[in-house]
Amino acid sequence: MSERKTGRERGEEWWSTDIIEMHPGTIRLRGYEIQDLIGNVSFPAMIWLMLRGELPTEEQAVLLGIALAAAVDHGPQAPSIAIARIAATCGVGINSAMASAVNVLGDVHGGAGEQALEFYGAIAADMDGGASLEDAVRDRLDRFFAETKGYVPGFGHRFHPVDPRAPRLLEITRQYAREGVINGRFAGIAEAIEADIAARKGKTIPMNIDGATAVIYGELGFPPTLTRGLFVLSRSVGILAHAWEQSQKPDRNKGPLPREWLWAYTGAPPRKL
Amino acid sequence: MSERKTGRERGEEWWSTDIIEMHPGTIRLRGYEIQDLIGNVSFPAMIWLMLRGELPTEEQAVLLGIALAAAVDHGPQAPSIAIARIAATCGVGINSAMASAVNVLGDVHGGAGEQALEFYGAIAADMDGGASLEDAVRDRLDRFFAETKGYVPGFGHRFHPVDPRAPRLLEITRQYAREGVINGRFAGIAEAIEADIAARKGKTIPMNIDGATAVIYGELGFPPTLTRGLFVLSRSVGILAHAWEQSQKPDRNKGPLPREWLWAYTGAPPRKL
Amino acid sequence: MSERKTGRERGEEWWSTDIIEMHPGTIRLRGYEIQDLIGNVSFPAMIWLMLRGELPTEEQAVLLGIALAAAVDHGPQAPSIAIARIAATCGVGINSAMASAVNVLGDVHGGAGEQALEFYGAIAADMDGGASLEDAVRDRLDRFFAETKGYVPGFGHRFHPVDPRAPRLLEITRQYAREGVINGRFAGIAEAIEADIAARKGKTIPMNIDGATAVIYGELGFPPTLTRGLFVLSRSVGILAHAWEQSQKPDRNKGPLPREWLWAYTGAPPRKL
Amino acid sequence: MSERKTGRERGEEWWSTDIIEMHPGTIRLRGYEIQDLIGNVSFPAMIWLMLRGELPTEEQAVLLGIALAAAVDHGPQAPSIAIARIAATCGVGINSAMASAVNVLGDVHGGAGEQALEFYGAIAADMDGGASLEDAVRDRLDRFFAETKGYVPGFGHRFHPVDPRAPRLLEITRQYAREGVINGRFAGIAEAIEADIAARKGKTIPMNIDGATAVIYGELGFPPTLTRGLFVLSRSVGILAHAWEQSQKPDRNKGPLPREWLWAYTGAPPRKL
Repeated sequence: MSERKTGRERGEEWWSTDIIEMHPGTIRLRGYEIQDLIGNVSFPAMIWLMLRGELPTEEQAVLLGIALAAAVDHGPQAPSIAIARIAATCGVGINSAMASAVNVLGDVHGGAGEQALEFYGAIAADMDGGASLEDAVRDRLDRFFAETKGYVPGFGHRFHPVDPRAPRLLEITRQYAREGVINGRFAGIAEAIEADIAARKGKTIPMNIDGATAVIYGELGFPPTLTRGLFVLSRSVGILAHAWEQSQKPDRNKGPLPREWLWAYTGAPPRKL
Repeated sequence: MSERKTGRERGEEWWSTDIIEMHPGTIRLRGYEIQDLIGNVSFPAMIWLMLRGELPTEEQAVLLGIALAAAVDHGPQAPSIAIARIAATCGVGINSAMASAVNVLGDVHGGAGEQALEFYGAIAADMDGGASLEDAVRDRLDRFFAETKGYVPGFGHRFHPVDPRAPRLLEITRQYAREGVINGRFAGIAEAIEADIAARKGKTIPMNIDGATAVIYGELGFPPTLTRGLFVLSRSVGILAHAWEQSQKPDRNKGPLPREWLWAYTGAPPRKL
Repeated sequence: MSERKTGRERGEEWWSTDIIEMHPGTIRLRGYEIQDLIGNVSFPAMIWLMLRGELPTEEQAVLLGIALAAAVDHGPQAPSIAIARIAATCGVGINSAMASAVNVLGDVHGGAGEQALEFYGAIAADMDGGASLEDAVRDRLDRFFAETKGYVPGFGHRFHPVDPRAPRLLEITRQYAREGVINGRFAGIAEAIEADIAARKGKTIPMNIDGATAVIYGELGFPPTLTRGLFVLSRSVGILAHAWEQSQKPDRNKGPLPREWLWAYTGAPPRKL
Repeated sequence: MSERKTGRERGEEWWSTDIIEMHPGTIRLRGYEIQDLIGNVSFPAMIWLMLRGELPTEEQAVLLGIALAAAVDHGPQAPSIAIARIAATCGVGINSAMASAVNVLGDVHGGAGEQALEFYGAIAADMDGGASLEDAVRDRLDRFFAETKGYVPGFGHRFHPVDPRAPRLLEITRQYAREGVINGRFAGIAEAIEADIAARKGKTIPMNIDGATAVIYGELGFPPTLTRGLFVLSRSVGILAHAWEQSQKPDRNKGPLPREWLWAYTGAPPRKL
């Protein structure tokens, strides 16, 4: 703290940001007047500007929007959607129903894309260091399977034999790479991972939505943590839709199972103090 | 509960939705295959489909996106943004930082648009019942000011003499009305409210962002509660951007004031048990 | 804002509280040194001190603790408990699993005690104005049933014919009233409500946990909104226990229904864009 | 899934717990009838029963309550308390204000006790393997400081030269150890850590509230993760008190700084699209 600063200056400095500048009657986002942005940039372009500091090209914004639209919902079996619906029956505002749901998009539920992009990035770094694609992928998968029994983040699905979103997203990614919007590097890495796993396991463990959106977000230059943030924006749409739909029904305090059912009690037998 | 149903059927019925249908390898949103939607509908169009059940026209989707892009941020003085930044320094995932912030978009912070659209809708209903625009507005404002001392929801701003987002959004709304995308009714109502208040008060209390987005969402046919839901989607962008920016800084357990400051204690003097 | 104040003073004043005073090496709660409180006041007494500003008598603290202990859990069918368990499988910290759950203790799930105490308080106010207990109860119930079809807050239970917590809590309340710790007024009001409803309906709609804890909290002088706050503290115990238990199991992304089940889709048939 | 099970059985098994058994008219917690528990076990004893499965002795329950009471509040500079107060002005219920606050008790804000107890436990395990207290502490601190520049979890405070809660809690812990309620092992470990750090640094880095409560929770047999859970229960009291106090004031949408202040904008200069 400089001694020369007034308390007010010091207070204002405590909160500092590159994102937004405001004065009475003026709002600038990343240096642009809000009234210039309104009507001239799409919602995905605004998301990009806010997160990255610069405006995307129109093609980049469209591709970002495609990935955001792909992951909005996976049904009431998904914890986030179930929680949104349960919460909507408990007498809280739709913002709070959404918050309880968004809150669970953690490492397990929302983090696979982030982890996938970190994995792709490690392979890309190996390639920058001189490794071939195949060698870098094999080496990283060797290390992964030496440490972990589970699935490679972004590959395999407990419900879908093939997640229908992933091949469609990859097809689009390839098209944008051909058009030069992106360079296709992460798409190649992801496909090489899929191929290597298939060779190891004797069966394909196909890329899932997290693996596919991680390709797109990575191609567009987003860092891994923002992959999760973008997933939150995307899934918030499904969370809102389900919370809203549920709130139109008469249920109150909706539990996870039909009301006349209970749960299995597995604890101590009845006893006295 | 029908006696004929198996427990599994009964369990599956407990969770029912018009939004999403799934089978292994298949995801349909509102009846459309996800792979048909991906790449063919914009992110705002997907939001519309999820919330409304039908696809919008391209113009409707663009207008929705414009309103969503307009309200993404209002700086670290806004409770939601401040909370996102504070939370980001406490060792929680970016999803949880977002959840704590989204959660406070309640009646006071996030609800003005919803309340504004309810007010517009009441006036529209009076007009459907035969009242003129001016009479309906005057009558509703008479009743409002008889009950409430405060501001009409959607009008006035404690910081901006004129909220620069509102006139720009109204201008765009008027343009879309001229092109026939919307009919302009709520824009007319909102402008009549502004004019009537100005006549009463002797000074203009200009429409704010909540009043202006409520016009657009209402013109597009969204019910009032969804106005708040759409605001949550919009503000989530700023919440993510600020949480992300803050997480790149070294602060840990960031409080609201500079670290060397305290707060005013106004309670009981020191005392003994 | 006084012009004479430094920015730092102004900043510190923005945050003011009667609850806690701190200086380096010193923490005082409601005027008491923290090291004097530690070891000398029970946890319920500390809750009372923090919320009320003064220490309770030992008997008051014990009675508060009894009510807090009574409502800790109502099983995985309760939305709050279900959400805690679901969240615990999603890769978030135990604090965030608890937050998603606590968040849904809204008007419907957590608010019945608050509403019950408001109802008791309205009757007490009528009695202060000269009405007899029976008249005040009858009059308030007449008005309630004229406006509402549902249950009187605090009475009736969708699962328990008699909620076993309520008669036990009432028995204890009566005992504390006999001992002069409380005056028993709200217990009398609650019993009169139960009796009046039974006479109207031809069957008893027995007091539930919310109605019974509202009696105790009201007798102890807590305002209605704090009744909900105290319920949050109480139920947080069950929320923590269930989140913890669930986190010890191998489930990941636990949905509400067995994994092989789906949900009933009730929307549009398959269709093309 | 057994083929023999009905869907309902299968559904009920999906939710299984050792904590609570319910039937219409019956609630048992850990095997005990709720009406037997009510009035006979204190609130801290109920917390213990719910988390551990067995009832504590009276002395154990009292000691648990002492630790819970010690950490209820650390003022509006603590992120959790600041968020509770901010949220309370945004038009959400007190449960939601509490949820936004509890949610940020993550690794950084709420996790120090958990980390401290893990550290104590590692030293205890070394001692079980034959190491002396001094050797085990020195060895673990050597490893810690080789990897980490920061503070040892549970020691040092950015505000208090000596956190007044810690020595008082240690004094009480020693007393309970003398009385045989606990064995004092973790207290000895924590004091040896403090002494070793002082020898290394040439100055004492005194134990803080997290280090001290971790001693007590560890002595009482709680695993590290529950240390964080218990902190959430404890701090929830301060969160509720501050949310409640703030909600009694007229502020609406309270930001972190005085209303007439802004923040430092550090981003791109004004520019055109």
